[in-house]
Amino acid sequence: MNIATPYLLFLGDAADQLAAKTADGIAYWRRETCVGQLRLPGCKADLRLKDLTLDEGKAAGAKTLVIGVANRGGVISAAWQDTLLRALDLGYDLAAGLHNRLIDVPALAERARTNGRNLFDVRQPDRDFAVGSGQPRSGKRLLAVGTDCSVGKMYTTLALEKELKSRGVKADFRATGQTGILIAGSGVSVDAVVADFISGATEFLAPANTADHWDLIEGQGSLFHASYAGVSLGLLHGAQAHALVMCTEPNRPHMRGLPQTKLPGLRDCIALNESCAHLTNPAARVIGFAANTSGMDNAAAERWLKATEDEFGLPAVDPVRTGVAKLADRLLA
Amino acid sequence: MNIATPYLLFLGDAADQLAAKTADGIAYWRRETCVGQLRLPGCKADLRLKDLTLDEGKAAGAKTLVIGVANRGGVISAAWQDTLLRALDLGYDLAAGLHNRLIDVPALAERARTNGRNLFDVRQPDRDFAVGSGQPRSGKRLLAVGTDCSVGKMYTTLALEKELKSRGVKADFRATGQTGILIAGSGVSVDAVVADFISGATEFLAPANTADHWDLIEGQGSLFHASYAGVSLGLLHGAQAHALVMCTEPNRPHMRGLPQTKLPGLRDCIALNESCAHLTNPAARVIGFAANTSGMDNAAAERWLKATEDEFGLPAVDPVRTGVAKLADRLLA
Repeated sequence: MNIATPYLLFLGDAADQLAAKTADGIAYWRRETCVGQLRLPGCKADLRLKDLTLDEGKAAGAKTLVIGVANRGGVISAAWQDTLLRALDLGYDLAAGLHNRLIDVPALAERARTNGRNLFDVRQPDRDFAVGSGQPRSGKRLLAVGTDCSVGKMYTTLALEKELKSRGVKADFRATGQTGILIAGSGVSVDAVVADFISGATEFLAPANTADHWDLIEGQGSLFHASYAGVSLGLLHGAQAHALVMCTEPNRPHMRGLPQTKLPGLRDCIALNESCAHLTNPAARVIGFAANTSGMDNAAAERWLKATEDEFGLPAVDPVRTGVAKLADRLLA
Repeated sequence: MNIATPYLLFLGDAADQLAAKTADGIAYWRRETCVGQLRLPGCKADLRLKDLTLDEGKAAGAKTLVIGVANRGGVISAAWQDTLLRALDLGYDLAAGLHNRLIDVPALAERARTNGRNLFDVRQPDRDFAVGSGQPRSGKRLLAVGTDCSVGKMYTTLALEKELKSRGVKADFRATGQTGILIAGSGVSVDAVVADFISGATEFLAPANTADHWDLIEGQGSLFHASYAGVSLGLLHGAQAHALVMCTEPNRPHMRGLPQTKLPGLRDCIALNESCAHLTNPAARVIGFAANTSGMDNAAAERWLKATEDEFGLPAVDPVRTGVAKLADRLLA
């Protein structure tokens, strides 16, 4: 899946800023690939990009109209259809990470076909994968693992890519979820592949590379999440990571979506991740922590980071509050 | 997926007995559901069932023609087509566990439709699943886990079902692979579901039951198999098993399909399986071993079983050589 850039970001009739969080992520991490935003009447979201029409976007060089908005249920709204059809007529590809697929809307599929345009449904893999081989491969890889889902794995790996590149280190973010794929322009939504091919899809996503190159692989879920741990383990084996970053949200009351389950302790979570990772890379080590401390005040966040560093002898950062320089230092040490 | 019985077993033009191993498994475990076998000229396999024509099978009550033969590549042979089409005309459903799907052969799909018959491609799930909830549920469950793939998990759970039923214990084999599904007439090929739903599919497969009922869940793969461990972990979490049986083949030189990887030690394999299982059932324990000792002579097999029992203080059986009575004793103790 390789999505042509630059993008025009479609916000539709977003009910609020949160409804446009996919577009928000793209505009934050890849502002240079966004020529502008396209908003329909009633749209409540704003990325502070230039408001462009489809024609203006095209004139500015946009190749793909990215549906960066989700409405309830993740369906493709009928209110968007005229705009999407016209985009296909103007030569745009369309990309979306919604539950419902663009290709399953007959009018869009037909119009894309007649115009020779591509519809990218990034939540669904567009190819088959081999089963994982577990064979050692060259290049270096980091994987973001976590105590839970939605604790900042994507943000952490994107921040590390930026930090490493700023230091002249060869590095690539490897996306494993829909927002990451739209940000990177490529990737594999690993939780949507057939179960037998989780590790194989990950080997495909982060292939052999030069010895001085880092792949920074976005993780998914947690080995301690009763719904999704299979995905996390396949990712861990397929990644063959040298370095793991443990992502967490310190004050979260329970596992996401599982009110009866507490988050695992950091020590248990490190032990299980390292021990499983050793199956395909005996050198795998947790090299530090990335915490989402947005629910804490400054003093509490600082205390938590300091206490964690003292307990484990590893750097602990909040990628938003402190940046990830300490993790990069450790990685390159 | 509920496949109507009794079956007529189709052996086609099987090149040898091994090519008919799916039919072999069905005839061994469910002889009472098989009215006979149907062989084409040149067939080299024989289940020692009555040879019946399609018409004779129908007269004997058969409802489904089961394709119990695989040729190279798992495709549906052109040489079978006349027989399969005629079966649909006579009112048979068709069932197969091949890589290629019956439904993807246009002539078969069309004929099934016009006759109102079902095509069961048991390798592919025929429904969507919810994500796993991890919520405790009633009933008791046993899961076969393993050091590797293809170490006898299906045989072990089927043998335990037979043993428990012979003792008047309520028990059901729950199939997670294609041969198991054809034997049981229902089940979910867990390695073929979308990765996000592995544990959810397992919760669906082995739902809440009465407190005195045992579900005996066929396992898949191994937490130590770099290709398939994600499937194994999702199964382990979804099963919420009270009892695990550790399956192994003592003399296997390396993990199946991975010549560079040795099998894990039994102690490590128990530790990781129990520790991961505790996420959804803190009572989960390995209650014994089922070994495929077919590569050893009698004396060596006995020595291995005895030494394993002594080392772990748990029963160790070879389901074929010794039966599984000792495992059942332990389970019911």
